[in-house]
Amino acid sequence: MVAGGSGKRMGTPLPKQFLKINGKAIIIYTLEKFLEFDPKIEIVLVLNDSYIEYWEMILRDSGFDYPVKIASGGETRFHSVKSGITKLEGESLVGIHDSVRPLVTVRRVYDAAEIFGGAVPCVPLKESVRQLRGDESKPLDRTLIQIVQTPQVFRSGILRKSYETNYKGTFTDDASVVEKSGYNIKLVQGDEYNLKITTPEDFEIAKILLNPQKPHLH
Amino acid sequence: MVAGGSGKRMGTPLPKQFLKINGKAIIIYTLEKFLEFDPKIEIVLVLNDSYIEYWEMILRDSGFDYPVKIASGGETRFHSVKSGITKLEGESLVGIHDSVRPLVTVRRVYDAAEIFGGAVPCVPLKESVRQLRGDESKPLDRTLIQIVQTPQVFRSGILRKSYETNYKGTFTDDASVVEKSGYNIKLVQGDEYNLKITTPEDFEIAKILLNPQKPHLH
Repeated sequence: MVAGGSGKRMGTPLPKQFLKINGKAIIIYTLEKFLEFDPKIEIVLVLNDSYIEYWEMILRDSGFDYPVKIASGGETRFHSVKSGITKLEGESLVGIHDSVRPLVTVRRVYDAAEIFGGAVPCVPLKESVRQLRGDESKPLDRTLIQIVQTPQVFRSGILRKSYETNYKGTFTDDASVVEKSGYNIKLVQGDEYNLKITTPEDFEIAKILLNPQKPHLH
Repeated sequence: MVAGGSGKRMGTPLPKQFLKINGKAIIIYTLEKFLEFDPKIEIVLVLNDSYIEYWEMILRDSGFDYPVKIASGGETRFHSVKSGITKLEGESLVGIHDSVRPLVTVRRVYDAAEIFGGAVPCVPLKESVRQLRGDESKPLDRTLIQIVQTPQVFRSGILRKSYETNYKGTFTDDASVVEKSGYNIKLVQGDEYNLKITTPEDFEIAKILLNPQKPHLH
């Protein structure tokens, strides 16, 4: 579980994974989704060191008492995930997930990774897109573009081997690291509700979607 | 106002622009946003012929009585917009807008188009993306990609001249047609809330965002 973010885009002093909805931190909602999927799952949380104290406060507040190992967050997502992998003990499927995605459906991706060795959830892009080129921009064919979500799930062996490499600027997600090692990335159907809470607008929408009075939206 | 859609992706028999939220069709919310921006605006609605009767029923139901000219929807968005342009009488700025975007902020884009001759609202992509290539896919640099929204606003002269051309498969939005005529496309900041209601999930979110009891979200 990657929770390295610092809340820059939210404009809040607190990283967004720690913001509360109905009195519960977003990251706790997210962790609960993984425990629902597998009540014995091994969890490693990658955190910036400066937030460890805050995380412990959230744990006390929430009453969440499942064991969670902590790894130190790095400079980029690549460094954070690499740090998290060193704490993993089991040999099985490993899902790497953004802590700011509490509306996740976990099982489908793990099921596909069981078959293919790895799986990455994607949803089609609904809007037109343009690619910036200096001061100009050009349209891209949106039918060929998929939005990549998490969890990105891989066999632990594949993941460990892939993350032995050094950082490259093109490593924007876990799939890009794994495929650099020569593995094919299997795309599986993601979930339209799997919102990545990044902007204040996302936070407002998440507030509504996580409201227990609207269970049909989950 | 382009309302050519047939509702395929929503899985509903009725095109999504006609679905009601709090008893009011989505397209009426959208039209009202443009009237708020300019109470004397000239409106051309591009509709598939088969829905004209339904549209007239919605008009009677809603009590919306501002004059709206109707143009026949075509095979693609390009053909629909081209059809709409033929009905325009004024010489001024023309905004082309998706009727399934009721949460639009209109003024900012028109203000920019007034200065630059044309303007296209964009928001940054928050998620990683992959581009499909046959059975494979490759990561794209998301920091260079902008999601294109509507209204896309241009001087009527630029628009008329640009749409004299014949259809090409690369014409996914109005900007792509206009720039093919040699005009530069000016990107301006769009609006995170300007949701394009495409999937059932979008419809559920729009229901909440259009709820008058949550005015702080508008």
